[in-house]
Amino acid sequence: MAALGEFGLIAALSGWLPRISPADPRTLVGIGDDAAVLAAPDGRVVASTDFLLEGRHFRRDWSSAHDIGAKAAARSLIDVAAMGAVPTGLLVALAAPADLPVTWARDLTEGLAAECARAGAVVVGGDTARAASVLLATTVLGDLAGRAPVLRSGAAPGDLVAVTGPLGHAAAGLALLQAGLAGDGPLIAAHRRPEPPYDAGPQAAGLGATAMIDISDGLLADLGHVASASGVLIDLSSDRLSPGDDLQAAASSFFSRTGRGSPTPHTQALTWVLSGGEDHALAATFKPDVALPPRWTVIGEVRTGHGVLVDGQDWAGSAGWDHFRASE
Amino acid sequence: MAALGEFGLIAALSGWLPRISPADPRTLVGIGDDAAVLAAPDGRVVASTDFLLEGRHFRRDWSSAHDIGAKAAARSLIDVAAMGAVPTGLLVALAAPADLPVTWARDLTEGLAAECARAGAVVVGGDTARAASVLLATTVLGDLAGRAPVLRSGAAPGDLVAVTGPLGHAAAGLALLQAGLAGDGPLIAAHRRPEPPYDAGPQAAGLGATAMIDISDGLLADLGHVASASGVLIDLSSDRLSPGDDLQAAASSFFSRTGRGSPTPHTQALTWVLSGGEDHALAATFKPDVALPPRWTVIGEVRTGHGVLVDGQDWAGSAGWDHFRASE
Repeated sequence: MAALGEFGLIAALSGWLPRISPADPRTLVGIGDDAAVLAAPDGRVVASTDFLLEGRHFRRDWSSAHDIGAKAAARSLIDVAAMGAVPTGLLVALAAPADLPVTWARDLTEGLAAECARAGAVVVGGDTARAASVLLATTVLGDLAGRAPVLRSGAAPGDLVAVTGPLGHAAAGLALLQAGLAGDGPLIAAHRRPEPPYDAGPQAAGLGATAMIDISDGLLADLGHVASASGVLIDLSSDRLSPGDDLQAAASSFFSRTGRGSPTPHTQALTWVLSGGEDHALAATFKPDVALPPRWTVIGEVRTGHGVLVDGQDWAGSAGWDHFRASE
Repeated sequence: MAALGEFGLIAALSGWLPRISPADPRTLVGIGDDAAVLAAPDGRVVASTDFLLEGRHFRRDWSSAHDIGAKAAARSLIDVAAMGAVPTGLLVALAAPADLPVTWARDLTEGLAAECARAGAVVVGGDTARAASVLLATTVLGDLAGRAPVLRSGAAPGDLVAVTGPLGHAAAGLALLQAGLAGDGPLIAAHRRPEPPYDAGPQAAGLGATAMIDISDGLLADLGHVASASGVLIDLSSDRLSPGDDLQAAASSFFSRTGRGSPTPHTQALTWVLSGGEDHALAATFKPDVALPPRWTVIGEVRTGHGVLVDGQDWAGSAGWDHFRASE
């Protein structure tokens, strides 16, 4: 990267991205000026920002540059979808060591662009800097298309709780990698490159979702945010959350390899489902009379009270991910 | 920070920020949900993102937390002003070591909020993570209020080049700090906490500015971007850029302390003016018949050709800051 220089890098990054058509109604000013200008036809804009940091959120020896780019984009894009909006543009701040291979930056950029394309957005701007490790900060903008934003605070007693997208897959994949059980199975792929269900966000908004959140810290932790913001109790049914064969097999491998984990493989697999983050599934609450499309699985209900229970009881396992409290 | 935990930190950060009135028409959804929702009454939104990294852009022993917060905000806010827009909202991603004092994070937050207030914006969202050093990524959103964005590409032969805001002050202050000449003079203050002329951006747009840029990499480097994007030559008059007594005195101190620098203190001071970044002054080009308010100083003219000259000649000194090429 040092050979390119900052301005050469910015030019190269722009060149690696798909060309935005001058006729594209979303991007009025793209990369190359002091700021981007995007259309906000709805008169409002949805915005969210996220870090993806080497050593904390990814390792370069565990994930390809393409996957890291895709994951950085995914983390942000789904935040907009979780408001019921359609992602339109992504800003990417990239800091990297001077000896980072240019091909690595190219592959990262292509991963960012590919994930944006999957969500219907484009990369519109960013920043570069030098740092000792790879640092990404992504900011997504989105369009509500006339819909009211779906907040965390709208859940009411009597509502159903439903999810769409995998639960615990990324956490299981990360555990396998940490245990030295390398491989290219679907769980490890889920850690390397989550595939959030972007279009389910606007769909849920259209179905009248009363609250919505993306599962980034773990199901219990994130539904805890909904319960707290809404002033309600959420009670989950463990039989709706039963881990699939893939998670159970992974838990068995993890167990026999490390001797660590929950008392039984089944409990370990359920722990991943309940407290594993980074799959970026969506959870939403709906009025009980809504006819949900098959992709949404009802996993519990909203009641008066506070907190999150499983089968009416506190869940004893780890509740989720806290960046400042979690041990390495 | 470890004692607060991530969610405690987010709650604390929110509490340290000024409360946004529910009647504030700009912020429809603020901190605490998956994303913020801002008004974009113009049907367009201006957006820009920037890093401010410990060890690269600031040192905790050279700048207070309040100043670092203000500087992080300033770097982004001025990018929106340089398009001719009014900043409306700021998203702040903050990564920090677990042992960072909570009071430091509070002071940082207050600095962010104070600078946003100076620009007419509010902090609307962000992200937190743990890292070995303090990392900030700020994203600003802004409103063009019906004006066309002022790009880098609109300068035409015959236009005048004008600037508003200080040039070389932050670079001189940083040089004094690096030379061990600590103190609390205005140049060091300019490094620690630049005061960009936010309202001059929309003002220039209203005056029909043909191109505009904020001076973040140095006057020659940034006007080089304008010249390149516009396909023109920019010729500066050194007598319009003559360093003030403060810069000349600082150059003399620097010279006698270090023995380094340009051949004479005057040349060193002029080098800071021409190649010092981070003051975040604004440079713009205007049609020659525009009556410029006194805050704008004409420093040169646009001609056919390419590149940037000083008194018709190449400037021999350092052209500006390149994050990947510059040595430590």
